[in-house]
Amino acid sequence: MADDKPAIGMSSDHAGIRLRALLKDYVESLGFTVLDLGPNSDASVDYPDYGYKLAAAIAEGKVETGIAVCGSGIGISMALNRHPHIRCALVTDALMARLAREHNDANVIALGDRLIGDETARDCVRIFLETEFAGGRHQRRVNKLANPVLQV
Amino acid sequence: MADDKPAIGMSSDHAGIRLRALLKDYVESLGFTVLDLGPNSDASVDYPDYGYKLAAAIAEGKVETGIAVCGSGIGISMALNRHPHIRCALVTDALMARLAREHNDANVIALGDRLIGDETARDCVRIFLETEFAGGRHQRRVNKLANPVLQV
Repeated sequence: MADDKPAIGMSSDHAGIRLRALLKDYVESLGFTVLDLGPNSDASVDYPDYGYKLAAAIAEGKVETGIAVCGSGIGISMALNRHPHIRCALVTDALMARLAREHNDANVIALGDRLIGDETARDCVRIFLETEFAGGRHQRRVNKLANPVLQV
Repeated sequence: MADDKPAIGMSSDHAGIRLRALLKDYVESLGFTVLDLGPNSDASVDYPDYGYKLAAAIAEGKVETGIAVCGSGIGISMALNRHPHIRCALVTDALMARLAREHNDANVIALGDRLIGDETARDCVRIFLETEFAGGRHQRRVNKLANPVLQV
C-alpha cells in the first residue's frame, strides 16, 4: 500500500457544486481518494457551514488536505481560516497555489467557480497537491498562525 | 466635517512595504486618512504579527476598514481571518474586490505585491472602498462568520 495517496477533503456551497464535482473527478484521476463533504443538492446553503465542515474534518485528522469551492472562493476561505489549524489560500492561478504551499504550508485551497476557468482550476489543484512546503524561515510564521495573539 | 471620509488601516510585511506606500498615497489622494501600522523598515518581519495588528485596530474600533499587503497576500489574509470580526478577502482584480464587498461585507482586502501590478492594485482598492454590501441573504452568512461553530 506504499503507493496509496492520502484522501483529500472537499466541500463547497451551492455555487461551487459544479466545479467541486469536476475537481473530484480530476483529483481521483490523479490517484487520490476524496472525502466529499457536500452539499449534494443545488439548494441554497451557507458557505460558512461547509467551510467549517472541511475545517473540522482536517482538525479531526480525517484528512490532511482540502479543496473548497464557492462562487468567488472568498466566503469559504474566510470561514476556513477561522480555524487556527487551517491555512486556506484563495488562489486564482497555479503560481498562487505554489506559493501557498511553499511559503504558507497551506492545507486547503479555495477556488471560485465564477472567477476562473476549469483548466485553471485543475492546474491550481495539481500544483497545490504536488508542491512541498519550503520550511526554514517560513516555519516560524506558520507557527504563529496556529497561535494567534490577537491583541484585543 | 460631513465630507470627512473614514480612516483606513494599513499594514504589511517587509515584502509589502513598497506597495503599501504606493497604496497609502493613493488612498489619501481619494480623500481618506490612513492609520499606518507599519512596518517602517525593510527588515524581515513575520506577516502574522502585522495581520494581527490590523485585526486588532479594527476590533478596537480605531478603523472600520483595512488594506493588508504581503508578497502574495496569502499569509497576511490567513492571519487576519483568524479574528472573528475580520472578513479579509485576498483579491487579484477589481471583480474580486467588488464581490468581496457585495457578498461578503469584507472589511479588509489583502494584496500581493509579487502577484499583481500597481494599477491593478489601485483598481482593487478603489472598488473595495466604493462598493456597498448587498445585504439580504448575504447577511445571514456574514453573521455565521462572526460566530464560528467549528464542530471540533
